[in-house]
Amino acid sequence: MSEGFVEGLMAALGGDAVLVGDAIGPDYCIDETLKARPVVPAVVVLPSTTAEVAAVVQVAAEFAVAVTARGAGTGLSGACIPLLGGMVVSFERMSALLEIDDAGHVAIVQPGVTLAQLDAETAKYGLVYPVFPGTNAASLGGNVATNAGGMRAVKYGVTRHQVLGVEAVTGTGEIIRTGGRFVKNTSGYDLTQLIIGSEGTLALVTEATLRLHPRLQHSASILAPFASIDAVAAVIPRVVASGVQPMILEYIDRSTMKGLLRMNDLTLGVPAEIEAATEAYLVVVLEGRTEDRLEHDVGDVATQLADAGAHDVYVLPPGQGADLLAARESAFWMVKAAGADDVIDMVVPRNRIPEYLSRVQQLTSEHGSRVFGCGHAGDGNIHFSVYEPDADRRSKLLSAIFEMGMSMGGAISGEHGIGRTKKRYYQALEDPAKLALQRRIKAAFDPAGILNPGCIFD
Amino acid sequence: MSEGFVEGLMAALGGDAVLVGDAIGPDYCIDETLKARPVVPAVVVLPSTTAEVAAVVQVAAEFAVAVTARGAGTGLSGACIPLLGGMVVSFERMSALLEIDDAGHVAIVQPGVTLAQLDAETAKYGLVYPVFPGTNAASLGGNVATNAGGMRAVKYGVTRHQVLGVEAVTGTGEIIRTGGRFVKNTSGYDLTQLIIGSEGTLALVTEATLRLHPRLQHSASILAPFASIDAVAAVIPRVVASGVQPMILEYIDRSTMKGLLRMNDLTLGVPAEIEAATEAYLVVVLEGRTEDRLEHDVGDVATQLADAGAHDVYVLPPGQGADLLAARESAFWMVKAAGADDVIDMVVPRNRIPEYLSRVQQLTSEHGSRVFGCGHAGDGNIHFSVYEPDADRRSKLLSAIFEMGMSMGGAISGEHGIGRTKKRYYQALEDPAKLALQRRIKAAFDPAGILNPGCIFD
Repeated sequence: MSEGFVEGLMAALGGDAVLVGDAIGPDYCIDETLKARPVVPAVVVLPSTTAEVAAVVQVAAEFAVAVTARGAGTGLSGACIPLLGGMVVSFERMSALLEIDDAGHVAIVQPGVTLAQLDAETAKYGLVYPVFPGTNAASLGGNVATNAGGMRAVKYGVTRHQVLGVEAVTGTGEIIRTGGRFVKNTSGYDLTQLIIGSEGTLALVTEATLRLHPRLQHSASILAPFASIDAVAAVIPRVVASGVQPMILEYIDRSTMKGLLRMNDLTLGVPAEIEAATEAYLVVVLEGRTEDRLEHDVGDVATQLADAGAHDVYVLPPGQGADLLAARESAFWMVKAAGADDVIDMVVPRNRIPEYLSRVQQLTSEHGSRVFGCGHAGDGNIHFSVYEPDADRRSKLLSAIFEMGMSMGGAISGEHGIGRTKKRYYQALEDPAKLALQRRIKAAFDPAGILNPGCIFD
Repeated sequence: MSEGFVEGLMAALGGDAVLVGDAIGPDYCIDETLKARPVVPAVVVLPSTTAEVAAVVQVAAEFAVAVTARGAGTGLSGACIPLLGGMVVSFERMSALLEIDDAGHVAIVQPGVTLAQLDAETAKYGLVYPVFPGTNAASLGGNVATNAGGMRAVKYGVTRHQVLGVEAVTGTGEIIRTGGRFVKNTSGYDLTQLIIGSEGTLALVTEATLRLHPRLQHSASILAPFASIDAVAAVIPRVVASGVQPMILEYIDRSTMKGLLRMNDLTLGVPAEIEAATEAYLVVVLEGRTEDRLEHDVGDVATQLADAGAHDVYVLPPGQGADLLAARESAFWMVKAAGADDVIDMVVPRNRIPEYLSRVQQLTSEHGSRVFGCGHAGDGNIHFSVYEPDADRRSKLLSAIFEMGMSMGGAISGEHGIGRTKKRYYQALEDPAKLALQRRIKAAFDPAGILNPGCIFD
């Protein structure tokens, strides 16, 4: 590390906010990416203010040191795994929920605020921030960087649809503010949307303005076993078109459901003969403004599902519904415990899910590997856990799956991001003109190329 | 014009698609911007395919000729007024509605498709494209370029929230495809969102993938006169928080309402003594999946409005409600006919509307000018017609209003765009670091600077 670099950081932040050597704990070196290798950075800084973030980025630019932002470290694509010799900017000291604007239905948060923290606070106002990715330990900064999604996207959209503006530090250490406490804006380019999902490569988000929604008090979960995934896919547009605004529309394949029930010690009361005849389960969660309406909507959806050939339709008691959703949220931990070698989360046009699933199974069996799936059937975002310990064979299988899904009009990642683990596929399969354009955009924000180099593309 | 330029275009498109001299009608020289001066371009081209668009942009790049894209020409900020010596790319021959994907709830359109055309077609499927700016003669290409908004944004968001992907031609004549038939995507930078609202300065949109929603069959309009705009602003968060999902929340000031009623020969049955005590009207439109629910919601909202101090609450008969909304949509034509000198559409945080309005009135009276307003109270987007014939005084007044609104956390335009008419203010008031960043982003798309130069910034 260049002489004077750490001294420059210490001068900017004070000694207790600059960690080197043994002071760098293992948590700073890794995220939740399966089979990822930890990388120990040269230094970890813990800024407390936006001005301090700008100062450390300026020092890093001067010394040409790579900068990797870090929230809660729950990412699944390695986007916050640092570079050797690089600097981690950890937002643990910038975790204040600055404001809940009850009249504007807006929250202002620092990047280290967790979803759990935000949810507890918005609940007091009868409001909700409606993005629920797999874990509520995730930070808002990380959610913005990866455009986090989750199960409720079919109703509320993803992080991109909730973030109205940001304060951010670019690669030159300049502080910019974008957007504001409003939904409409046509005043120059939408820098907010450009920064969202850029995985720390364009700017470090130091504050976000988030849209809040009314927290509806009544919800119900419906489980419907179907003989085929085609039948599940066919009923989804009908449920959506009926105007009931389903909050969640998930499919879970038979193997994954078995694993989830076993691992979470759950029973759903589905008779064995129905289980045996079921290829895919559809889980529909509805919410409502009143109990009456919810009951009416549940009845309508139950009829739609039965008409579409569900073996049966189970309206789950509240506790059981919550348990099933918690189990579904925990699917990642199940596959991690089971030794999965990778997870992928392509998004494809919703009505092509059956074709995508069947072609994934075909490719997988051709490659002699195994995959298991569940996914956000309402929005075409399908998660597979991949069991193939041989890195070369796994890479070939993933290439084949991504290429096939893209040829169907899909994209490599719906919500996990490209990060470091999927970039080889992204670079190989994305249109070279778009890659070149994105590199030029990166250079516009980060001329020295210090912000998370090697993430998304090399 | 350089020798060989028109010949190059003719070679690319054929002679009947290249207009010069007297063949260029007056419509190509102007949009609906108040008091704008027409500019006759050197040439107008009428491409029929994306490949032809790419070809004419390549020819323009070779000859360094400015390129201005044109849809239906209904813009209000001069973004499609051409440059002297420049080329207009008119999308009138690219007006095919390519597909309604009933299972995916998506429409694929060429840029010349109008909102009216799309609305008629989606209605057949029980679906709706929910962006309704002032006129349904507008084209989707223009709507994407300006991120068009309108009255329903409080429920559905604006164009930005409906466009899932585009095909576009950059300033180098390269064709790129972004996004797809899905809502979730974290696979590289969001080029779709960057292109939306960029007013033809980054790329020419040649196809758009649009999200459709269920077309709810029941709607009702409620009119509530209030003694003050403060009272209107105070009730809005309550209506939204109750979960009724209002489709429209408009305020209309007393003068504007009088004009609208007179111009459209409407009566609403509001007694004269109530009219006299009214500073601002709130119009709430609700929609519902069933008549029962709608009635229930209307009752709830009526109670909220009465509790908040409305002089009275009128549930308008369907015909009258539609007439009032049509009149509100036509407000622009009223102010144009009345000789207004400009219109502005700042957006401010919703709960600061009263303060913004009162400070606008104060600034206006200090400048000896007159303004009248109405606006999208649910989303903070306030429209003013400005009556000040002296260009210098008008410019000073607008500068003062924009600076004041931005100091309240607002932005210069919610939906009209910066275009050519607001750029002097935008350039003067926007953060120089953000302006410089946007110029670099423009250069990434359009290194020769041929796409709509002089729009948004110089």
